[in-house]
Amino acid sequence: MGMEIERRFLVTADGWRGQGETRRLRQGFMCVEPERTVRVRVIGDQAWLTLKSKISFVSRYEFEYPVPLADAETMLDVMCALKIEKNRTRIERDGRVWEVDEFFGDNSGLVLAEIELPDEDTPFDRPDWLGAEVTRDPRYTNAHLAGHAYAGWSAEERARILD
Amino acid sequence: MGMEIERRFLVTADGWRGQGETRRLRQGFMCVEPERTVRVRVIGDQAWLTLKSKISFVSRYEFEYPVPLADAETMLDVMCALKIEKNRTRIERDGRVWEVDEFFGDNSGLVLAEIELPDEDTPFDRPDWLGAEVTRDPRYTNAHLAGHAYAGWSAEERARILD
Repeated sequence: MGMEIERRFLVTADGWRGQGETRRLRQGFMCVEPERTVRVRVIGDQAWLTLKSKISFVSRYEFEYPVPLADAETMLDVMCALKIEKNRTRIERDGRVWEVDEFFGDNSGLVLAEIELPDEDTPFDRPDWLGAEVTRDPRYTNAHLAGHAYAGWSAEERARILD
Repeated sequence: MGMEIERRFLVTADGWRGQGETRRLRQGFMCVEPERTVRVRVIGDQAWLTLKSKISFVSRYEFEYPVPLADAETMLDVMCALKIEKNRTRIERDGRVWEVDEFFGDNSGLVLAEIELPDEDTPFDRPDWLGAEVTRDPRYTNAHLAGHAYAGWSAEERARILD
């Protein structure tokens, strides 16, 4: 169990490519509610079940447990109407870790970056490939993207940045 | 992972009392949808996370994993609006296991019995304390009872048996 404090940004340039280590993620959602999500994730031959409970836009409870790959594959096939595929690139920089997610399928064209922080207001350096912050924009959660793919967003929706 | 085949009945007499072993169960639901549920359950100092996916009223996929007690207690406190408390009595009879659930709190007065079977149509002996079958009645699932407690049912609703 733990509290997770993350900030999320659009990625608007390619300077992050070629850095860090990239892995393919497949994930599906068994529960998508404003207050909580239940997710199954497969990376290579490993799988995890993750429960998140929202406390604020930046903070939440998160519980994560490894599960057998065969279970996870059945969950993805049978229990998840909402699915996401993406490449995650892990970049260490100034003592912090950025995770850059490049989405595929119906979310192709979208690239997001997340940084985990000890506190909501911890200062950090901004890489020059970082765009606007979208931490408080619920449209950019994976749970929302799974059901409202980026391919279906209008140019106006893509350009809108919530304060 | 496994397929779970269960039939569920009202319990209309006290002949089951004093048999088998009884344990107190506390459980909460993080997801209640017609097609799936995500449940956390605490028995004594042990806890489990359970995901169920409905295939038919009698059959479903079920995945269950042990989780740390502290995680489960936090999930019950923070993530579960829908909760159930009950005593479960496990009674072996004619080579099969009956689980008799006596509910407390807002579901006091309700007693249900379940039997797990290898197939949907496997024959079994009916104990004389067994009442009408409610396997196909969604009102008697724990997930539904957690949000629509038996205390609030009218006499007519309690008497109604779905075919």
